[in-house]
This record gives sequence, C-alpha cells and structure tokens, in this order.
Amino acid sequence: MTTINILQQPTSTAWLDQAIANLDIILLDHSHCERKAAAAALNLMFRYPSSRALVDKLTAIAQEELEHFTLVNQWLDRRGIPLAPLNAPPYGAALRALIRRQEPERMLDFLLVSCLIEARSHERLGLIGEHCPEPELAKFYRSLMASEARHYGAYWVLADTYFDRAVVQDRLVELAIAESQILSTLHPEPRIHS
Amino acid sequence: MTTINILQQPTSTAWLDQAIANLDIILLDHSHCERKAAAAALNLMFRYPSSRALVDKLTAIAQEELEHFTLVNQWLDRRGIPLAPLNAPPYGAALRALIRRQEPERMLDFLLVSCLIEARSHERLGLIGEHCPEPELAKFYRSLMASEARHYGAYWVLADTYFDRAVVQDRLVELAIAESQILSTLHPEPRIHS
Repeated sequence: MTTINILQQPTSTAWLDQAIANLDIILLDHSHCERKAAAAALNLMFRYPSSRALVDKLTAIAQEELEHFTLVNQWLDRRGIPLAPLNAPPYGAALRALIRRQEPERMLDFLLVSCLIEARSHERLGLIGEHCPEPELAKFYRSLMASEARHYGAYWVLADTYFDRAVVQDRLVELAIAESQILSTLHPEPRIHS
Repeated sequence: MTTINILQQPTSTAWLDQAIANLDIILLDHSHCERKAAAAALNLMFRYPSSRALVDKLTAIAQEELEHFTLVNQWLDRRGIPLAPLNAPPYGAALRALIRRQEPERMLDFLLVSCLIEARSHERLGLIGEHCPEPELAKFYRSLMASEARHYGAYWVLADTYFDRAVVQDRLVELAIAESQILSTLHPEPRIHS
C-alpha cells in the first residue's frame, strides 16, 4: 500500500474492502468528485482572480478534472449506471470548516485543503487501480494517477509560491493530522472519501 | 453588420466605437467573461446533475470556455495587461433577474438566458473580429467564432431537448426582447456586454 508523503495516515484496508465491494457506487461518487473538483478549482479562481500563477494552474486543473469527469461518465454508461445524486460523506465539509476566515490565512488554507483532498484521492484511486478485480477498470484507475499526482503537487506549489515554506509546512502538517482524523472512522456509505 | 438570428436587435455602432477605442479594457473584460461563462456552465450542471444530455454538453462548453480564457490571458500578457478586477455591467444581473423561480420554468430560463448571452457574445466578438484595427487581434477574435456559435446553439438544443419547441420559442422571444432592451442604453464603461 503506497503512502502519499503529505498524508499523515494511510487509508485503512476497511475502506478498500468497502470500495471494492461497491464499485458501482464508487464510480458514481467518483463522477461527483471530479465535477466538484473542477468547481472547487474555478471557485478558488473567482476568489483570487488577479493572482496570475494561481489562475493559470487552476485553469489547467479544472480542465483535467472535466476530462476525468467525462471519462468516468463513460464508465457509468458502460455499466448502465445513470447519473444520480449521492449524499456526500462528512469529509469535504469537515475540511472546509478548518479554513480560517482572515486573509492571507484563508488563501493558504484553501490551497492546502485542496492539496490534501487531491492527495487522498490520488492515494485511494491508486488503491482501486491496484486491487480492483476487473482488469479494464483497474487499468482506467491507474491511468488517472499521473494527473492526480500533478494536481496535489500544483496546489502545494501554489501555496509555496504565495507563502513562506516554513509556514506552509507547519500548516500542512496541522491540516493533514485533521484530515487523517476525519477519515479514522469509516463512513458507513461507500464513497471515495468515506 | 451581422445580426444573429435569435437576437431581437443588433448591437449599436456606439458599442462598437466604444469597444474599438478601449481594446485593452475589452480584452480584460473578455477574460472575465470567459471565466464566468465556464463557471455558469458548471453551476448549471450542479443544479441538474442527473440530466445526462445537459451534463455532457455543459462539460464540453466549460472546457472550451476555459481554453478561451487561457488564450485571452495570453493576449493580456502580450499587451502587458495584468489580471485585475473590473466592475461588471448590469447586463448579467438584469438577465438573471428574469429567471423564474419554479421548476421546470427555471431550467428553461437558465438555458435560454445562457443562450442569449452566448449569442450576444458571438455577435460582439464577431464585430471586433471584423472591425479591430490590429490585424493579429482581429484574427484571434475571428478564430473564436465557430465555438462561440456552437455554444449558443448547444444551449438552444438543450432547451429543445427538455421542453416543447413552441414553449421554447415563445419564451426565447420574450427574453430576447428583454435582452435587447437591457442593452439599449449603452453602459458608460467599455465592456463586452456594455
């Protein structure tokens, strides 16, 4: 099991078992995650529309998330799964609650929370790619790895562009501990971030 | 001067004179418009996440708007114009105020308002492409025409997919009359939708 550097705790085997036993729901949730990730990148761009490095990187990320969204939706088609709403697990809201309200801390936290979500997604999609019993679907998940890694790297680079590295590192550790804590109790419904 | 079919009134020469005399501001506003258009497509997708035809078309539109956003930002670079906030003209808010609150009317109005904004953008970017005194910039604006036309066409097709054609046509005429009315007084600040 690969542990992404910035994550404090690796994903549990309980999550992996839950995901592999519910691949159709995981695929549908994955579709929602890609759409939400594109929207999150765009929203962040709307908050800081004059920060050129941020705008350029987030545009590229949003485009890739939309490409993945299309690819995941094609997988839903193949399996006859219609697009449908799914309750979100508490993960995203719990992380967003940690974003401080004052600038410049708010910008730093937005970037690092996105970095952590992308890093966790990368880890978990990688686990599916490694353990999924359906070879074609496993291959698809492995094919997403390079760009998913680029995404969390890009958020880290942006934080490092606008803030002192020591400040970034300290806050990243704090948020990463919280992120692992949020996931320490498995959410009963199978989700990418359950 | 080309009149787009669904627009009730063509753009005035006063707008064109204002735009050509303020190309730097128009380019900056155009950058904002492309980012807002991508966000509008994504927002609409979040409202109707299970409507597959809508999701597919809006994903493609959002991707193209982000491509244009990047291209316009490269033009800003060449001219040494930094990304900066600009007050929006009243156009967008005035159109959004016409969207009815109840479904299914709300969905129809969202689609037709987006259709009209895209049609007007297509008309006005085309006018810049035709009349801009800088040949390279004029060429760039002409190069955007095909996809801008696809966008308003796609919004119309979506309205026609989910609603009776007669209902679509009647409401489109009502909204198009309002749209031309909103633009009948030139906004004093140069904008794509002044």
